[in-house]
Amino acid sequence: MTRLRTKALASQVSHQTHYPRIGAKTTGTISPSQLLQVVETTAKTGAEVVMEAVNKPRNITYKGLTDLVTETDKASEAAILEVVKKNFSDHLILGEEGGIIGDTSSDYLWCIDPLDGTTNFAHGYPSFAVSVGVLYRGNPAAASVVEFVGGPMCWNTRTFSATAGGGALCNGQKIHVSSTDAVERALLITGFGYEHDDAWSTNMELFKEFTDVSRGVRRLGAAAVDMCHVALGIAESYWEYRLKPWDMAAGVLIVEEAGGAVTRMDGGKFSVFDRSVLVSNGVLHSKLLERIAPATENLKTKGIDFSLWFKPEDYHTEL
Amino acid sequence: MTRLRTKALASQVSHQTHYPRIGAKTTGTISPSQLLQVVETTAKTGAEVVMEAVNKPRNITYKGLTDLVTETDKASEAAILEVVKKNFSDHLILGEEGGIIGDTSSDYLWCIDPLDGTTNFAHGYPSFAVSVGVLYRGNPAAASVVEFVGGPMCWNTRTFSATAGGGALCNGQKIHVSSTDAVERALLITGFGYEHDDAWSTNMELFKEFTDVSRGVRRLGAAAVDMCHVALGIAESYWEYRLKPWDMAAGVLIVEEAGGAVTRMDGGKFSVFDRSVLVSNGVLHSKLLERIAPATENLKTKGIDFSLWFKPEDYHTEL
Repeated sequence: MTRLRTKALASQVSHQTHYPRIGAKTTGTISPSQLLQVVETTAKTGAEVVMEAVNKPRNITYKGLTDLVTETDKASEAAILEVVKKNFSDHLILGEEGGIIGDTSSDYLWCIDPLDGTTNFAHGYPSFAVSVGVLYRGNPAAASVVEFVGGPMCWNTRTFSATAGGGALCNGQKIHVSSTDAVERALLITGFGYEHDDAWSTNMELFKEFTDVSRGVRRLGAAAVDMCHVALGIAESYWEYRLKPWDMAAGVLIVEEAGGAVTRMDGGKFSVFDRSVLVSNGVLHSKLLERIAPATENLKTKGIDFSLWFKPEDYHTEL
Repeated sequence: MTRLRTKALASQVSHQTHYPRIGAKTTGTISPSQLLQVVETTAKTGAEVVMEAVNKPRNITYKGLTDLVTETDKASEAAILEVVKKNFSDHLILGEEGGIIGDTSSDYLWCIDPLDGTTNFAHGYPSFAVSVGVLYRGNPAAASVVEFVGGPMCWNTRTFSATAGGGALCNGQKIHVSSTDAVERALLITGFGYEHDDAWSTNMELFKEFTDVSRGVRRLGAAAVDMCHVALGIAESYWEYRLKPWDMAAGVLIVEEAGGAVTRMDGGKFSVFDRSVLVSNGVLHSKLLERIAPATENLKTKGIDFSLWFKPEDYHTEL
């Protein structure tokens, strides 16, 4: 028993070091602390807009509800854009609402989700978030996620942030992924997108398989939040097909800087322009891939598109 | 379009009134306000024990983690029992940890879950709860649920309560279920138990079907909390097979008193000794049963046991 355990641990450590880092090697001409300060300001500014809307009535009519969501989404993005432009007028910006703005010759690409988890927001169901990640030549360099927790009668926020190589923080305190090294003791998270295609069906199968063998698979509904929960060590892994760069850019860096691993769901090197993501506490990564990678390879053999997307055409990357 | 809509609404209203109420018709010789006051005190007392444990380190060893969960569970139940016994020495008590205690000739049965959502608690993942419901001759008469929200860096609680016929409260304010009247606009919740039997597989299918046709199915992991979320109007419905009386006694009354409907998953009249529960905002109940009831009937034809369970043998009920 002891020997087996030692072997297993050795194999996990060696697997963990295999996964290539996805964070930028440098933050370029802007210092990490300066970049972080602006990223944190943008997410905080968006969160102030969302917090103002959080207790507004939603149930008058469905039309009114949709409007509140759309208006909040747009107002949060506008407030964030203003902060970015004021500080870095020449940076490229990819917003969920506004598409691509700015100079494609910039090394910096801001990926902005002004309201991640809109369905939860619309219902007042926790959690949702404002998520801002900055890429340097295509790789995540700095990130901030403001999570809205609790819900009616007890709304509160929790702020996650990270810089490439600088570690991850929650409310200013260093955070670290969990050390859980067995799937049967792991709490997992996944998500299901709006498009109900083959990837959606495959993930339904994965949800069932992992619910069977783990301590449970949670389905909360906000990608940035789910990744931050892995970084915080309260869950061991999260995966999803078909996310967008603005859903992932901040969360993946926060997980990596909290000591976790980030790959595509086929196990390949991840970029925020990819169509699948698997984040974990690192020690469990290869064990999760044993089921997730073959399922994803099956989708590829069916001809399902896993090419890079949402990458601004002329934006220069070092992926 | 207008005619169709009117017809649909008329049909919903008539369906809504069909479901028999599950709350007790009277609180017996104890006044509703006195019963509520003691129930609230018990849940608050348990929650104080849980709150003390919530930030204790969990990741030293897995053994240590298990011990923290077990110890907290037991300490919370012991604290609750003390309050019940001090106030009503002759009442019957059904606790998750301690089984049946007290006088089976009592009209009152306390159903106590000292820590609902233990997996979440073990991981620091929101939400979990302390849930206390009191039955009068088998029917829920008073209830209190203290929900732990947020998680590390921002723990907080939210308190739900109800008395039969007296309405439901959250943090002292009246609450009401949502008025959402279409499945495609509904946010739903379900759960999967530890036993991976036919009912588990059937619910996997329901999870998939409803994820396909609704705004999403959440999987949070604490039954009492999930039901309170329906009562609060932030989700439209919750269902699960194989729950225990202590998981359900408080939540079902809180939903009903918030204006919602409660039945078994085959659509039949619910008691807390049943092996399935479906709660909803009422207007959606019959639409949800269109899928959930046949799936449950199928389980019955397979011979899956849906008889009453956990009912103390000599306890006199009016079910």
